[in-house]
Amino acid sequence: MARLVMKFGGTSVGDLDRIRNVARHVKREVDAGNKVAVVVSAMAGETNKLVEYCRAISPVHDAREYDAVVASGEQVSSGLLALTLQAMGIDARSWQGWQIPVRTDAAHGAARITGIEGERLVERIDGGQVAVVAGFQGIAPDGRIATLGRGGSDTSAVALAAAIQADRCDIYTDVDGVYTTDPRIVSGARRLPRVSYEEMLEMASLGAKVLQVRSVELAMIHGVRTFVRSSFDDPDAIRAAGNQPIGTLICDEEEILEQQVVTGIAYSKDEAQISIRRVADRPGVAGSVFGPLADSHINVDMIVQNISPDGSTTDITFTVPQSEYDRAMAVLEAEKGKIGYSAVEGACDVVKVSVIGVGMRSHTGVAAAAFNALSAKGINIRAITTSEIKISVLIDAAYAELAVRALHSVYDLDKVATA
Amino acid sequence: MARLVMKFGGTSVGDLDRIRNVARHVKREVDAGNKVAVVVSAMAGETNKLVEYCRAISPVHDAREYDAVVASGEQVSSGLLALTLQAMGIDARSWQGWQIPVRTDAAHGAARITGIEGERLVERIDGGQVAVVAGFQGIAPDGRIATLGRGGSDTSAVALAAAIQADRCDIYTDVDGVYTTDPRIVSGARRLPRVSYEEMLEMASLGAKVLQVRSVELAMIHGVRTFVRSSFDDPDAIRAAGNQPIGTLICDEEEILEQQVVTGIAYSKDEAQISIRRVADRPGVAGSVFGPLADSHINVDMIVQNISPDGSTTDITFTVPQSEYDRAMAVLEAEKGKIGYSAVEGACDVVKVSVIGVGMRSHTGVAAAAFNALSAKGINIRAITTSEIKISVLIDAAYAELAVRALHSVYDLDKVATA
Repeated sequence: MARLVMKFGGTSVGDLDRIRNVARHVKREVDAGNKVAVVVSAMAGETNKLVEYCRAISPVHDAREYDAVVASGEQVSSGLLALTLQAMGIDARSWQGWQIPVRTDAAHGAARITGIEGERLVERIDGGQVAVVAGFQGIAPDGRIATLGRGGSDTSAVALAAAIQADRCDIYTDVDGVYTTDPRIVSGARRLPRVSYEEMLEMASLGAKVLQVRSVELAMIHGVRTFVRSSFDDPDAIRAAGNQPIGTLICDEEEILEQQVVTGIAYSKDEAQISIRRVADRPGVAGSVFGPLADSHINVDMIVQNISPDGSTTDITFTVPQSEYDRAMAVLEAEKGKIGYSAVEGACDVVKVSVIGVGMRSHTGVAAAAFNALSAKGINIRAITTSEIKISVLIDAAYAELAVRALHSVYDLDKVATA
Repeated sequence: MARLVMKFGGTSVGDLDRIRNVARHVKREVDAGNKVAVVVSAMAGETNKLVEYCRAISPVHDAREYDAVVASGEQVSSGLLALTLQAMGIDARSWQGWQIPVRTDAAHGAARITGIEGERLVERIDGGQVAVVAGFQGIAPDGRIATLGRGGSDTSAVALAAAIQADRCDIYTDVDGVYTTDPRIVSGARRLPRVSYEEMLEMASLGAKVLQVRSVELAMIHGVRTFVRSSFDDPDAIRAAGNQPIGTLICDEEEILEQQVVTGIAYSKDEAQISIRRVADRPGVAGSVFGPLADSHINVDMIVQNISPDGSTTDITFTVPQSEYDRAMAVLEAEKGKIGYSAVEGACDVVKVSVIGVGMRSHTGVAAAAFNALSAKGINIRAITTSEIKISVLIDAAYAELAVRALHSVYDLDKVATA
């Protein structure tokens, strides 16, 4: 007897047969006595089609009209799922963002949810009606439809779960959970039964594209227990197995009893490295580098600056998405006079590999083990950054898979318990 | 300098190129100094696709969910047209039914507009912004999307024109106006420069499918001057010709200076005739026949009952849509005991041909001319009904074209003035 949010992406509602399968998952939870709100994306391909229409009309378009056009995809899928549930004898209705309402800020096209007035929805859900909510959308202060940006349905689901105080937010996706690393690279990669919000945040932002980063942030802030599971599992088989969910629970680290020191190895291939040689080692120099990049909306990720070797100049290294490498170099050229440096160097064939785990806060030797493992394979480290729960190294792209495998085995991740 | 509503159907917004052509029509009116609201249908094929989805899920479905699903088509086309206008440098925004709002009754799937709160819209239009309104939809008292039934965008346009006190409502369609009869049958059919609301109402309900009947009713009630014109005309050519619109104005008969006695010949092929023999000629008998038919939602059209030949029994003849013939016969069989009749006869191969014209109110001999013309061609009349402005005859379907041609020429309709 729990209040649940179930979220299904575009692939899961890609055609009427798949929508029927989603409805069977919902029925399974309803039959188990749960109170359910479902959040759906648009049918696979629909959003792309609508986005293409807008782009074809004009590369630069009014985000408010774009929002009205693309939000229609979720309007369709939510209505169709409600109809399918009704056809199975389940009381259900669809809710558009503006009907709940889900309030957002004015940033049309990439809006943030500012509040959800979920009282009416809760009343209906607790009364036994399934709420089918159009994801990815809300209503802006101007009374017009606003969308949350691509992948925003995850965020819709978590925000809704927080608003209606759901016991759990189940994210049904095309994988059955979060793994210690990419199973395509390491065959011994294991599904993690639980992972903390902080760790998931690092993994999400590093390209383990199971969940949108924003949704993990929200889950962490509001303490929404978020469960990643596969939509391809057969609802009847799950039912037969006593409704035991298989997947990964993203939760507070307090909830994780047997905490591993290292939880996973993530990597990000979309990195380009830029190093600025011999900039003056004085206050304000970092600002003179990163200010103009920010003004040009270039997203800077890893930043490394060491202490000055000669007391007067130093080197700054950072990474940008590969697609913005040329633009970033041009900005730095143009600012050369203001920044003052001897040379700018860069490389696009680099990869960032990260070791993640909340346990490393209280364990020593985690970093040393990583460096030794890489060194044993003859992998040269270009740069290192660390946070409390993460060690990232920048290496040549050619060594990416080798490095991930080496790090995965050094922390015994292939032996992690799956419970 | 006028306030205009321009309505474009699904074919006119069927793809991005056609939407661009619509935008050029709008630009033409804006450049001429007019204040414009545009009403659009969904892109051709979209509504059918969405209706098919709903039907595939369940033949009997929740009309509220159906409405949410199918109304998305107009959401897309209104957004895309607004974007296209903006790309041409014209200030424009889309308005969904619930944003204006267009209020409807609770009859989801076939709702009627109960009111339009057009103040904000008028403010924007008069300020020079083009309003692109999603047709076919409004918001029901329960706060959910309601659609007006197929073809409802005509009704949206006329209702909007009434609400914002537009000087004219231009219905852009795939024909360039209303004709004296079907040009596919009579090559000499002529476009009518003006036709009265009453006449158009008779024509619309008789299968001259230029305008939805409900929209003509609304236009008549609110005195909306409605102009039927072609969306395929080249906007630049119209502009070059001084923006003189070509089409048919549907207006008050006072506005029609040279009123013809007969305006047009309409026909309806979707008719089945049912005759009930020797029912008792007493009060209440008609109710005993048509009550059960109404309870079964069978739409009865033409009804003929003559005075009793023997003072005690009489015959009743009426028509129903061909698709409901079998059902109607079954109802009458079942009610035989209550109604009391000797026999029921019927025929599906009949057609109704009508002579329409407000002028026949003040002219004699119109009916006689019709009967003589049909008789001269050897066409037997099964039944006759008349209204103030219409004479309808039921004849064998095989004679349909012959009858239309005969009637068209007897009233000199091929010589009608087109001004």
